[in-house]
Amino acid sequence: MVDVSDKPVTARRAIAEALVAVSPETMSMVIDGGGPKGDVLGVAEIAGVMAGKKTSELIPLCHPLPLSDLVVAVTPDRSAGVLRVRAEAATTAQTGVEMEAMTAVSVAALTVYDMVKGVERDVSIGGVRLIAKSGGKSGDWVRDERNDAPRPPKRPGARTAGRINRSTRTHRPPSNRSS
Amino acid sequence: MVDVSDKPVTARRAIAEALVAVSPETMSMVIDGGGPKGDVLGVAEIAGVMAGKKTSELIPLCHPLPLSDLVVAVTPDRSAGVLRVRAEAATTAQTGVEMEAMTAVSVAALTVYDMVKGVERDVSIGGVRLIAKSGGKSGDWVRDERNDAPRPPKRPGARTAGRINRSTRTHRPPSNRSS
Amino acid sequence: MVDVSDKPVTARRAIAEALVAVSPETMSMVIDGGGPKGDVLGVAEIAGVMAGKKTSELIPLCHPLPLSDLVVAVTPDRSAGVLRVRAEAATTAQTGVEMEAMTAVSVAALTVYDMVKGVERDVSIGGVRLIAKSGGKSGDWVRDERNDAPRPPKRPGARTAGRINRSTRTHRPPSNRSS
Amino acid sequence: MVDVSDKPVTARRAIAEALVAVSPETMSMVIDGGGPKGDVLGVAEIAGVMAGKKTSELIPLCHPLPLSDLVVAVTPDRSAGVLRVRAEAATTAQTGVEMEAMTAVSVAALTVYDMVKGVERDVSIGGVRLIAKSGGKSGDWVRDERNDAPRPPKRPGARTAGRINRSTRTHRPPSNRSS
Amino acid sequence: MVDVSDKPVTARRAIAEALVAVSPETMSMVIDGGGPKGDVLGVAEIAGVMAGKKTSELIPLCHPLPLSDLVVAVTPDRSAGVLRVRAEAATTAQTGVEMEAMTAVSVAALTVYDMVKGVERDVSIGGVRLIAKSGGKSGDWVRDERNDAPRPPKRPGARTAGRINRSTRTHRPPSNRSS
Amino acid sequence: MVDVSDKPVTARRAIAEALVAVSPETMSMVIDGGGPKGDVLGVAEIAGVMAGKKTSELIPLCHPLPLSDLVVAVTPDRSAGVLRVRAEAATTAQTGVEMEAMTAVSVAALTVYDMVKGVERDVSIGGVRLIAKSGGKSGDWVRDERNDAPRPPKRPGARTAGRINRSTRTHRPPSNRSS
Repeated sequence: MVDVSDKPVTARRAIAEALVAVSPETMSMVIDGGGPKGDVLGVAEIAGVMAGKKTSELIPLCHPLPLSDLVVAVTPDRSAGVLRVRAEAATTAQTGVEMEAMTAVSVAALTVYDMVKGVERDVSIGGVRLIAKSGGKSGDWVRDERNDAPRPPKRPGARTAGRINRSTRTHRPPSNRSS
Repeated sequence: MVDVSDKPVTARRAIAEALVAVSPETMSMVIDGGGPKGDVLGVAEIAGVMAGKKTSELIPLCHPLPLSDLVVAVTPDRSAGVLRVRAEAATTAQTGVEMEAMTAVSVAALTVYDMVKGVERDVSIGGVRLIAKSGGKSGDWVRDERNDAPRPPKRPGARTAGRINRSTRTHRPPSNRSS
Repeated sequence: MVDVSDKPVTARRAIAEALVAVSPETMSMVIDGGGPKGDVLGVAEIAGVMAGKKTSELIPLCHPLPLSDLVVAVTPDRSAGVLRVRAEAATTAQTGVEMEAMTAVSVAALTVYDMVKGVERDVSIGGVRLIAKSGGKSGDWVRDERNDAPRPPKRPGARTAGRINRSTRTHRPPSNRSS
Repeated sequence: MVDVSDKPVTARRAIAEALVAVSPETMSMVIDGGGPKGDVLGVAEIAGVMAGKKTSELIPLCHPLPLSDLVVAVTPDRSAGVLRVRAEAATTAQTGVEMEAMTAVSVAALTVYDMVKGVERDVSIGGVRLIAKSGGKSGDWVRDERNDAPRPPKRPGARTAGRINRSTRTHRPPSNRSS
Repeated sequence: MVDVSDKPVTARRAIAEALVAVSPETMSMVIDGGGPKGDVLGVAEIAGVMAGKKTSELIPLCHPLPLSDLVVAVTPDRSAGVLRVRAEAATTAQTGVEMEAMTAVSVAALTVYDMVKGVERDVSIGGVRLIAKSGGKSGDWVRDERNDAPRPPKRPGARTAGRINRSTRTHRPPSNRSS
Repeated sequence: MVDVSDKPVTARRAIAEALVAVSPETMSMVIDGGGPKGDVLGVAEIAGVMAGKKTSELIPLCHPLPLSDLVVAVTPDRSAGVLRVRAEAATTAQTGVEMEAMTAVSVAALTVYDMVKGVERDVSIGGVRLIAKSGGKSGDWVRDERNDAPRPPKRPGARTAGRINRSTRTHRPPSNRSS
């Protein structure tokens, strides 16, 4: 574990995203709340939050830290053929919460897979990446997605990249909300 | 949780894969065993195994089951610009181990990210998918990767898809090794 | 831990229940899916399932065992002024799943409390009890609720006991479904 | 998870209680330290403390936080026919420890059940409720138990409520001890 | 993880031991049930059982498996100046329970240390070792302690080794009790 | 749990050590990175770090706390016939990290045992002890190892004690590095 004993305690925040590429039939099933295992979106969001809290148990060299915020949202994007998983985490600590956000979106995406694999086994997860972070010595950072090639492009014709780029217009370094 | 009380106990096996797209500099650092947090490949493999054993804690509707095998390998693929994470899991139980393999590769990939993010923050994880499974009522299944579009194509020019397709020639339904 | 090494492996099933007494306003909020923390029923059910899987971690002398089934349902009972939490667990093992069902309903009830305490802090949980079990040396057992006094009777006028007694007409030793 | 990033760090404390209704024979066995699984009171208290530390793992939207104090006591109350489980938790954090106290008493009570169910299967747990809290924006709060109907009234004739009411005379908002 | 998919399911049992060397004053305090943190022996035994159930979470390449038995006893040995921690574990599985017994004694010993370190900080733990095992392909095995040099000999004059050797006369391969 | 609510938050650090006595053949295998389960030193170090983060889950009365540093090193000492496991932990909190360091070395040592037991079953672990601590009301403390008798002396002729004493010359109260 990197020694952070001498780093200052600062407010930190991070946003990550993952994309789950599903067929139009699976997409409809998820949106309708159907499927063999119940409400995909709700269960996946809860799984993401609970996994984010387990980050330091899962990632060997992550520091355990208290979390002051952790929100996960799974949003169907029918035109892109993906379920977009987004997590935002916050803490006031000596180290950041990038891994908490990344772990939360990964496990939420895995939960989606678990809940739809009975109807579509070859679903794939991609685009697991940090979107933005704030706080700490390295300061604010926002992903530049112009360089990103089209992501989870499993479904031909899906305009994934365009959708993502559009949504990145809202990518600002996450402020600490209260200010 | 789906009721599997009446399903027969059979030998089951599953293989999953994830891809971590890194820059050539990060790739070299990983291969050389350098980097700010030490041996990336070894730590990520162990993290994957330990996470695979936690699958039923992470995925809400997964059944807890004993595992008879779980192996994770992280292999640098310099020409594709990716670290290829592969996991194979086995059990003799009433339900399968797809989620154990998927969880293992996801957490191994997250661990890679954690260990290189100090030098390359915008690394992304993609291609998290089931490759093959055997056992159970639905029987053997092998992913048909011909339909897959190029994956983690973040680095322009990387011939990811070709490499993957080539490696899929070895995708056979995982036999139970002993037979 | 009691030594069960010599007990036969048999199919076992258990049902438990808990009751969360809430005000009519809280009841309406829960039914409408409102409240400061979101969908109470869905989150509580998932929490119950995940806690049931952790039973042997929580209860010191419980044996760890695989589960073949675990379902949690939280049902509003407006006339009784309670949210009724019910869990059914199953395994094929050397020991029973009473504690898994009891733990699942307890944590689901605690989750309800957590999600409504911002609007009603003095909610109480009661009636945490085993309803029925089947399998194992001691055989089938069904709770005789005629002896039970009115439970979570916090809200004067609520006819809790009657409702419970009526519902117990469906208490049969849980069969192993497939038969 | 509710965002508490902007809440001040303050000293917080909470007390919760649960009641386990047992037969006179079971009560005697517990007091004498007998029973098929050993020392009920001691094991249940430890289980309660350890579960309190796992609260944020069990309750999906609970914030993980450090605990500066967590004490669980299980006290036989022969005249009321109950084992009274009480927990007191403390932290200095941005959010409170009500759920830690509630989780601790619930799991301690479940552990009592586990340890006596071999001799009395229809034991029930009730009266799981917050008794008092201090600290935080909402300030001090003490449960008003005059409105509570008789609780765990499973054993006819037990004067549970009276006993509880008497003990509530000691319910003051938990001070931070040091003052 | 070693692939045990093809190994037969057999009854397995293992015994391990650890020794905690304490001063005569600490020994008396422990025997009297005093000390700043309460009942050392009882708490340490429970901690050992609970840790034994977590073995596959702690030891990276251990297989998760159900346990049919796990008992931990901490016995003061005043003449040797040690608290003797002994654990016996059993399962019916494809692999053995040596690590479960070893983990149980280690964590029980650590718990003893935690509970007495306020009065004697330089307590040390030694003699953590497997005593006997049965079942599995490699069959029965009993430690030959004649070759062992005196263990935890921190307290001059303590006749630790002699005591241990005497007790090893009872080391038989653990039978499966029922036969 | 001891109430530490009124203790000041201070920087704290602790160092612990454990010794794993192995045969010369096992020692060579470990140093060469061979053996049936792979890289012993690397896996044991990671296991130690991950276990140190779980300390408050394992030791019943330990306070959960954030860690700012946790490093585990396993060093072969061929002349002493031992693998020397050393851990250093740090936090800024109301209580110390002695147990985190002790737990980390214990589980790292158990992992070594797990990985070599296929070739040498009677390996033993000893000398699990605190080496030094700093911070907190009781202030700095360094173990005086002159009183320690020879430790893990299982292999006749190994000059364990001398080696340990020599290394203790470097035992200073762990400073907080940054000063």
